[in-house]
Amino acid sequence: MHSADIPLFGVILAGGSGTRFWPLSRHLYPKQVLRLLGSQSMLEATISRLLPRIPLNRLGVVTSASQAEVIRLDLFRQGREGIRLWLEPEAKNTAAAVGLAAVLLAGEQEAETLAVFPADHYIRDQAALHVALNVGAALAQEGYLVTFGITPSRPETGYGYIKAGRPLMDGQAYEAARFVEKPPREEARRFLREGGYYWNSGIFVFRREVFLEALARHLPETYAGLRRLSAGEGGPGLAEIYATLPAVSLDHGVMEKAANVAVVPADLGWSDVGSWSALFDLLPEDSRGNIRVGRVLDRDSQGSLVFAQERLVATLGLRDVVVVDTPDATLVCHRDRVQEVKDLVAELKRQNLAESQQHLTVERPWGRYTVLTGGPGFQVKEVQVLPGKRLSLQYHRFRAEHWVVVQGVALVTIGTERRRLQANESVYVPVEAPHRLENPGPELLRLIEVQTGPYLGEDDIVRLADDFWRHADQPAS
Amino acid sequence: MHSADIPLFGVILAGGSGTRFWPLSRHLYPKQVLRLLGSQSMLEATISRLLPRIPLNRLGVVTSASQAEVIRLDLFRQGREGIRLWLEPEAKNTAAAVGLAAVLLAGEQEAETLAVFPADHYIRDQAALHVALNVGAALAQEGYLVTFGITPSRPETGYGYIKAGRPLMDGQAYEAARFVEKPPREEARRFLREGGYYWNSGIFVFRREVFLEALARHLPETYAGLRRLSAGEGGPGLAEIYATLPAVSLDHGVMEKAANVAVVPADLGWSDVGSWSALFDLLPEDSRGNIRVGRVLDRDSQGSLVFAQERLVATLGLRDVVVVDTPDATLVCHRDRVQEVKDLVAELKRQNLAESQQHLTVERPWGRYTVLTGGPGFQVKEVQVLPGKRLSLQYHRFRAEHWVVVQGVALVTIGTERRRLQANESVYVPVEAPHRLENPGPELLRLIEVQTGPYLGEDDIVRLADDFWRHADQPAS
Repeated sequence: MHSADIPLFGVILAGGSGTRFWPLSRHLYPKQVLRLLGSQSMLEATISRLLPRIPLNRLGVVTSASQAEVIRLDLFRQGREGIRLWLEPEAKNTAAAVGLAAVLLAGEQEAETLAVFPADHYIRDQAALHVALNVGAALAQEGYLVTFGITPSRPETGYGYIKAGRPLMDGQAYEAARFVEKPPREEARRFLREGGYYWNSGIFVFRREVFLEALARHLPETYAGLRRLSAGEGGPGLAEIYATLPAVSLDHGVMEKAANVAVVPADLGWSDVGSWSALFDLLPEDSRGNIRVGRVLDRDSQGSLVFAQERLVATLGLRDVVVVDTPDATLVCHRDRVQEVKDLVAELKRQNLAESQQHLTVERPWGRYTVLTGGPGFQVKEVQVLPGKRLSLQYHRFRAEHWVVVQGVALVTIGTERRRLQANESVYVPVEAPHRLENPGPELLRLIEVQTGPYLGEDDIVRLADDFWRHADQPAS
Repeated sequence: MHSADIPLFGVILAGGSGTRFWPLSRHLYPKQVLRLLGSQSMLEATISRLLPRIPLNRLGVVTSASQAEVIRLDLFRQGREGIRLWLEPEAKNTAAAVGLAAVLLAGEQEAETLAVFPADHYIRDQAALHVALNVGAALAQEGYLVTFGITPSRPETGYGYIKAGRPLMDGQAYEAARFVEKPPREEARRFLREGGYYWNSGIFVFRREVFLEALARHLPETYAGLRRLSAGEGGPGLAEIYATLPAVSLDHGVMEKAANVAVVPADLGWSDVGSWSALFDLLPEDSRGNIRVGRVLDRDSQGSLVFAQERLVATLGLRDVVVVDTPDATLVCHRDRVQEVKDLVAELKRQNLAESQQHLTVERPWGRYTVLTGGPGFQVKEVQVLPGKRLSLQYHRFRAEHWVVVQGVALVTIGTERRRLQANESVYVPVEAPHRLENPGPELLRLIEVQTGPYLGEDDIVRLADDFWRHADQPAS
């Protein structure tokens, strides 16, 4: 079989926790759904650059249950509903995530060879990726665990390095002689001088069975745990199994230990987009080395990144400063310290601050809402419903709602009554009244919702029917 | 007469334009009403530190007509309604402002000696100020134009310097030998080395008639213009007169040219609070030289100022950066460049951006409102009405309003109907319906107002009656 004809099943790892790109990323709005580099989310870009080499019906996404809604929504918005979604009960790093997919794909003929991709990396050269995938697919048939190696451009100390050994396939690949995880600066410099070292890109190709054998050998606990999924009815549930799994990366737990590893040098224009400073390599700079996104007014700054949205950010005489502005939180950070943003977020979480969890604007399959303000006993939202969409039929135990339509047309069900509301019309939804909000028109529906009541949490929703298969206990309206 | 018994009339110059402290200051919310240094506005601090040497009934404030409402409100909130307010039709610098007060005070016995104060400076030592005022009052009786001189602590190039000449009053004061406006750094250094030079504080004491004589001699155009105010009925209006006046400072136009100027050295703990960086001298710093106000989470910054409010500002590894956050605009600026904030604001004005004009929250005599959001054909506000206060009886030509009470009790008049609304009750105010909103209770009233209509400007208010003597054509609700 020609290597371009070897079927590949793509496993996309989308379990990132959303800390490095705070405040643009949040725990419930992680990096993989951000539009950092254009109009596509990182996840959508990851999917679309695989096409047509890996078609949609041979793609699956692994993510955590807590991020399921936002990932599902991102897929939905991009018209990618067909893609399989595997939900991990908790994050146990990449060995478990890939292991889960491999176990669940058992018996699928077109999933005999897997290609694994992080959901949140950038690759400029799609054609080169497809060439490398074909080389990887061929090597996988020979029993190799294949990893893609990026030619290092700087003595980066945050990555893993792979030393190339014996050439394979006329020098299109090498056996991996050695892995070095996060070397000291001096060693990284030596790697660059000597050559023959590659950055570990996190992209892998292998036969499913070869991978499972390696997992059984090098991470027997993970393998044994995941195999119990096959026990069928009466066997342990996924959450119970996941609780027992070690949290270890595929690189560290399997690739570094296995003997049958090959590296395919791949000049992909790759970036792991690991922090705000990575954008300096990926977005266009002005003549003073500044990057500006959104509503920014600058005077005489240099080497600075300002990422704004609707609010105005004015900057003056900055040197090497990163400013990221969102409706409820702003980060101002020296460019050399962006790696520590995750520590800031850890501190926010310790203090239990909502700004680490989610944005004021929350995306939903039917549209979005934005929290405008709130106080003791009340909360105000703007609700936007897409044309033809409707929210679930639901009621609230504790809150009443006042709706004022300000744009478009609403079809409102309250109890057994149905009413059409135009802009400048309002309606009252009493506590415990079953109700539904629908946009029957061709235009966006916008309304202002004033909630009042003793408890206003998002989890006070009892769903009676839903177009999006959501359950009553999910924190969503 | 003992110098402490010489009556003084205080003229407070409050015409600042609100550019240097942007985005906390705005054109319609200038520095003099900011609470930069504690719970008092700069204006209120200026007033209260004069008491009891200058009582409230011998105080007047000069400001511009466009800032009248915010200044009046600041006085009202501090219980200073009794203070006289003189409104300039346009800003023509300090010579015109003091000239206006001097002309309008003609014939008032207790206003024979004037003391002039900027509304937006800081003085730590009230007792020293009162001592200096008494020295100044005594010298004024001898025919001097008295200015207070601050002993320079650094070779500041942004101030005016006064060289002391012949000693007066046993060395408590000096004749002014020479004025030097904004000297080059080297010259300023020499002044400090040589001694006998003082910063010009902008505080003046003189007899009204002596000042008017000096004005007539050195700024005859200003003098002649203002004298026309005395023409009474049939004479020109203030706007017409002001249009002809030159814009020149009291220092430059009068003090530098007059021969009879005395300087009273005054160790007041004075600061002109001229920019964000001035706060480093006035607010407490942490051990790394940072100042933090509001909701700030910092990690390892040095020499930085972060001025936040309710929104979260996270800072990381900053060196000498000033961050000022407000609900609609954020400034991030190198500490050495704060003088250029005014140039940023000029650019905002050129671009006609609302963020240079006013805040999302606007103070009113009856409470305040905050713009929450808006879009084509609608705007949403939170309105807060103080206990016992009410808005004007008014109607709108173009907009309808939906009110939802979320806290407290509202007494609502619409047409001839009056209704009490509790939290979770709502009412609709049609276009052109005369209406009034009142807080009859002891608690704060908060309501959400959703406006809809083709035109939503603040000037669409026709006032039929008002507790605050505001006219129908004022941009206020």
